[in-house]
Amino acid sequence: MIERLAVLGVGLIGGSVAQALKRAGRVGRVVGYGRGRANLEAALAVGAIDAIADSPEAAVAGADRVLLAMPVGAMAATFARIAPHLAPHALVTDAGSTKQDVIAAARAGLGPASARFVPAHPIAGAERSGAAAARADLYGGRSVILTPLAENRPADVEAVADLWRACGAQVVEMAATEHDGVFAAVSHLPHLAAFALVDELASRPQAQTYFRHAGSGFRDFTRIAASSPEMWRDIALANRAALVAELDAYLSRLSAYRDALAAGDADTLMQSFTRASQARSRWQPNGSNLENDP
Amino acid sequence: MIERLAVLGVGLIGGSVAQALKRAGRVGRVVGYGRGRANLEAALAVGAIDAIADSPEAAVAGADRVLLAMPVGAMAATFARIAPHLAPHALVTDAGSTKQDVIAAARAGLGPASARFVPAHPIAGAERSGAAAARADLYGGRSVILTPLAENRPADVEAVADLWRACGAQVVEMAATEHDGVFAAVSHLPHLAAFALVDELASRPQAQTYFRHAGSGFRDFTRIAASSPEMWRDIALANRAALVAELDAYLSRLSAYRDALAAGDADTLMQSFTRASQARSRWQPNGSNLENDP
Repeated sequence: MIERLAVLGVGLIGGSVAQALKRAGRVGRVVGYGRGRANLEAALAVGAIDAIADSPEAAVAGADRVLLAMPVGAMAATFARIAPHLAPHALVTDAGSTKQDVIAAARAGLGPASARFVPAHPIAGAERSGAAAARADLYGGRSVILTPLAENRPADVEAVADLWRACGAQVVEMAATEHDGVFAAVSHLPHLAAFALVDELASRPQAQTYFRHAGSGFRDFTRIAASSPEMWRDIALANRAALVAELDAYLSRLSAYRDALAAGDADTLMQSFTRASQARSRWQPNGSNLENDP
Repeated sequence: MIERLAVLGVGLIGGSVAQALKRAGRVGRVVGYGRGRANLEAALAVGAIDAIADSPEAAVAGADRVLLAMPVGAMAATFARIAPHLAPHALVTDAGSTKQDVIAAARAGLGPASARFVPAHPIAGAERSGAAAARADLYGGRSVILTPLAENRPADVEAVADLWRACGAQVVEMAATEHDGVFAAVSHLPHLAAFALVDELASRPQAQTYFRHAGSGFRDFTRIAASSPEMWRDIALANRAALVAELDAYLSRLSAYRDALAAGDADTLMQSFTRASQARSRWQPNGSNLENDP
């Protein structure tokens, strides 16, 4: 049982953790802090939080669990502010999409208290953002990846895993470096690739002609290009070493396509398209195997 | 009223044209030709065609309308075979995804009869392929792009437009060069970009770890990578000039991202992500503005 949970950054992610723990009967009091007053009032109105704190310091005072659910770019300053105010028994976790940078920020800001920080990345989201969109079932059946620190006590890792499992999530442990490499490839790179395609088209004088004829393949390929620019700027910079490596690998593959195409090398294209089509169909065998809008 | 329609290549696309014209009461008899006997039998069984021809020559004999609905790579040989057997009043159209190459093939294969070929590209598809998946409503409300030739008579263009409109489609006219440029950007490039990403990941020793953690952003971005390798090889090669230009523009934009990221240039990323996000949201304002699985 968590007596007092501090949620720093009460958006969809943080609000949903609070709702899930409340529904599970696993938390007494939730205190929220965030930058937008209206959003905090909404969180209070829907019952995600029980009280609004005026500062991160006030939010964490007396809390036995602390969740950082703000953009990763804002975490470093928050760790430094809350460090002197954490209760001795408090455990801290986060919901950031990148882990090595958050860990570095935690060690710098928390000092020795970083032993009580257990990094987490919940793989969940929804079509809406903000506290008003929070819901208790957001994490049901979803993965939460923990990237424990060498200085964490096993019992503290287990306690944080238990918090996420109480939200309905399946907890997986990975090394932070592996986490950042994997998500650079399967999430961060696709977002940049979608942003790049849409901006490239939107920048042309005839942009409207292009968009007018775009069909369902374009629609799905570029869906993630409508994502928050701020959030993805922060993620890209936070994970830049891994993401630059992924961009280099992708640029290399696309350049090979370009050269094969220019040379009329049908075999190279056919072999790569075939490997991709088979791998994609294996990954989602019941998925939509569309050949639409060609 | 079409007395006899020849459908060369009776898959989803050709079969659906036949079904739509039959439902509209606009065609007497449909004769189909294709490479797969079982597929033709299925087309006969579902009533898409009334008879199976043993050759393209036999299919077009006496037909007043001829539809080529095979992969674009197979059209050149077909034009040459049917040329001597076309009725003097026959009008020919196609359903190819690229137009300049099909036009070149038609002029080479049909000779003076190319005046009676009105090129078309229906922007429609579905999750299934083959004649058994054909349906009369496939083209309802969808666009069909005509790229008429200088040698076409206006009355013939209108007659072919009328055929597609009878299928429920909205007919749009464009120049073939513009068509190929637009679809290189909004369709062919995204397919290559999705194939490249999936093949790049699938080729790694740790591929299964990557796929295991891929979420809904990856799912939608790569959906089109499950498409037919043969079909997309043909399209890519058929439209290679425009597609190489698109790949160059895309590589340039992605390289700029790579360099901005390596330099920690947050402003360049933020500006481009913002333009992309706004353009994508304008294009599909009621669409799924997800920020999920970050």
